[in-house]
Amino acid sequence: MQISIVCQPGADATHWCALYLKGARAEAKRKGDTLALLSLDDALARFRTEKPTCAAILSTSRAWTANAADTLSAVGVEPVIIGGASRDNYRHASYVYMDYREATYQLIEYLRRYERGRIALFAVSTDSATDMIKKDAFLSYDRCRERDVFYYTGADGLMNATCKKFLEVCRNYDAVICANDAGAVILMHQLTAAGVRIPEDLFLCTFGDMAISTCGSKSLTMARLNCPEIGKQTVAMCRLLTASENISGISTKIRCELIIGDTTASLPIVEKTLGTVHLPSAGAGGFHNDPSVSRIFQAEKILSACDAIDIDLLKLIIKGYRYFDIAEILHVSESTIKYRLKRIISISGFETRDEVIDVMKVFLS
Amino acid sequence: MQISIVCQPGADATHWCALYLKGARAEAKRKGDTLALLSLDDALARFRTEKPTCAAILSTSRAWTANAADTLSAVGVEPVIIGGASRDNYRHASYVYMDYREATYQLIEYLRRYERGRIALFAVSTDSATDMIKKDAFLSYDRCRERDVFYYTGADGLMNATCKKFLEVCRNYDAVICANDAGAVILMHQLTAAGVRIPEDLFLCTFGDMAISTCGSKSLTMARLNCPEIGKQTVAMCRLLTASENISGISTKIRCELIIGDTTASLPIVEKTLGTVHLPSAGAGGFHNDPSVSRIFQAEKILSACDAIDIDLLKLIIKGYRYFDIAEILHVSESTIKYRLKRIISISGFETRDEVIDVMKVFLS
Repeated sequence: MQISIVCQPGADATHWCALYLKGARAEAKRKGDTLALLSLDDALARFRTEKPTCAAILSTSRAWTANAADTLSAVGVEPVIIGGASRDNYRHASYVYMDYREATYQLIEYLRRYERGRIALFAVSTDSATDMIKKDAFLSYDRCRERDVFYYTGADGLMNATCKKFLEVCRNYDAVICANDAGAVILMHQLTAAGVRIPEDLFLCTFGDMAISTCGSKSLTMARLNCPEIGKQTVAMCRLLTASENISGISTKIRCELIIGDTTASLPIVEKTLGTVHLPSAGAGGFHNDPSVSRIFQAEKILSACDAIDIDLLKLIIKGYRYFDIAEILHVSESTIKYRLKRIISISGFETRDEVIDVMKVFLS
Repeated sequence: MQISIVCQPGADATHWCALYLKGARAEAKRKGDTLALLSLDDALARFRTEKPTCAAILSTSRAWTANAADTLSAVGVEPVIIGGASRDNYRHASYVYMDYREATYQLIEYLRRYERGRIALFAVSTDSATDMIKKDAFLSYDRCRERDVFYYTGADGLMNATCKKFLEVCRNYDAVICANDAGAVILMHQLTAAGVRIPEDLFLCTFGDMAISTCGSKSLTMARLNCPEIGKQTVAMCRLLTASENISGISTKIRCELIIGDTTASLPIVEKTLGTVHLPSAGAGGFHNDPSVSRIFQAEKILSACDAIDIDLLKLIIKGYRYFDIAEILHVSESTIKYRLKRIISISGFETRDEVIDVMKVFLS
C-alpha cells in the first residue's frame, strides 16, 4: 500500500524527524509499501482524487501539527501524529510517541533514589507537544512544582538565555532534568564554566538519543529515545487503520530506556568551558534555529557519521597533534588520516578542516 | 499463544462483558490462540511460574480495575484494560475502548442540528470509567454544565430514584443523552408515564447496543456500541504487545455508529407506563444489581435470542390472543408456537410462561 506522510517544510531535515523517517522507510521497505512525503497542499490536492484512510503528520511544531490535523480531518483523512502528543488535543487523530510520561517518572525516581529530591525541569518548549507531556508528568509528581520548570521561550528564544536563567537559581536544586540532549549539552558546558560541579553539586540527566551525549568527556544520564521505532510503528499503524474500519484511533507509546552516564555518577570532574558561539542567527525564534542548538546539531551530524577511529582522530587533532604522530598512535597511514578527514568535512557541510574542528572541540575536548 | 484475561468475579456474565468475551473468543479462535479466564488470585499464582508480557482485565468496576491493574503492574505484567478508560489513570496500562468522546460529540451535534440545545446527561455512574469519558466530553462542550449531569449514585443507587430526580427538572431540557440503554429504556417509560412526550417535548438518545432498544414500540436514537470488536482488538493488542518489546502501551478506540430512531424523530406518540417492579433486590448497590436495571437485562437476554417470529409471538400473547389465533396470524402450527415458547422460557431462566410475559410486556406492548 501507499503511506502518505504530510511534512512541515524543512522538518524532515531536523534531527529527530530524520530518525522517524529512517525507521518509517525501513519498515515500509520491509512490508513492500511505498512512502510518499508530501507538503500539506500537495496532500490535499492528491487526496481530492484518491483519499486514503489516514495520513501521517511529520512536524516539529505543535501549532503546525494542530493545523494539519484539523485540515486532514476536515477532508475525512485520519491524521496519525508522528512523535506527537498523548493529550487529546485533536478530536480525530492517532498518535505514535515516546512514553515520555513513564520516562519522566523513571528519571525522577532514579534521582530520588540518590536523594536528589530538589529537581528542576529544564528547557521545556511550549510549542513542543512532547515537552508538554514531560511537563505534565513532572508536575503530577509529588514535590515537583511549576516554579521548577524552566521554559525555553521568551523574548529572544535563545538556549543560552534559558541557561542563564537557570544558572541564577541553580543552587536551589540538586538535580536537573533536561527536556532534550541538545539543551543538556549546552547547559552542562555553561554550568561547568560557572563552577558548578556535575554530578557533585548537581545531577544532570536528559531525554535524548544523540551521539554527542556519549562522545564528550562526560556521558549523559538519559532516558534514551528510540526514534526509528516511532517511524516503524507509524507505518504499522497506518496499515492497521486502513485495514480496520471499526477503529477510530490508536495511540502507541514507545518505551524509553534509562542509560546511566557520568552526569549522575560521583566521578572526579575536569572543568571545561563552552567556546564563544560565532554562528549567525538562522532567522527568527524556534528551537532548531537557536544558534547554540544549531551548533549541537552540526556536531551531531558529524559525530553520528563517525566511527571510533574518526572520533579518536578528531580528539587528537583538537589536542594539537601532528598527522605524523596521530598516524603512529592510531596505527594507520597518514593518507588514511587525510582520507578520513576529507570524508568528515564533506559530511559536515563545512568547507574546511578548521571549521569542523572549531565546532567539535567544545564537545570532544 | 495463550491470552490471559483476569476477570472480576461475575463480570463475565454481565451484558457488555459477555459481548467483549464473545469477540475475544472469536478472534482467538481465528488466530489459533487459547484464551484463559482467570481470577486475580489464580492469575498471580500462575504468573509466578510463567509470566506473560501482558494480561487483559475484564471488570465492570473502575475500582476493581484500578486494583487489578496495579497488582499486575507490580509483578511486571502489562495490564490491558478491556472497555476501560481513556484517561491515564494507571501508570502502566493499555486500553481498548469505545470512542465515547467522539460519540458524545456526535450526539450533541446531532441534537443541536435540530435546535435541541438544552441537553442533560443522564445516569452517569462515577464507578464507570466509560461514563467518566462521556461526562468529560460532555462538559468540554460549549454550554454543557456540571449541573446538567445526572449521576447514577446516591443513598440507594436505584435507577428509579435517578429517573425521579431528572423528572423533577426535565422541563428545563429539550434533550437528554443517557449513559446507557438500560437507563434509557427505564427513563423513557417513566417520562412517558409522567406525560412527557418523546420526542415532541424531549429528544432522548443513548449509548447502547441492546436488542431491547430497537424492539419496543419506540426505537432509541443511539451511539451504537460495537462490543465484540473491543474483544477482538483486545486479542490483537495482546499479540502486538507480546511481539514488540519496544511498545510500552497502546490505546485503541473503537468507532461508535450513530443510529437514528423514533426517540428523536417527530412521530406521533402512544403513551405507556412501566409496570411495577416486583423483583427482589439482588444485594447492595451496583448498577447491575439495580432491580429495574436487572429487569432490562432479563428482557435483553430473551430478546437477543429471539428471531422476528418469536418477537411477533410474544407481542400477540401480550395482546391476549389465543394460540389458535396466533397460529393463523403467523402461519405456523400450534405445536410450533408451543415449541418456540418452551425454548424462550428455557433461555430466560424463568420457570413459567407468565413470568416471561410479565417481564416482556413493558417492553413489547
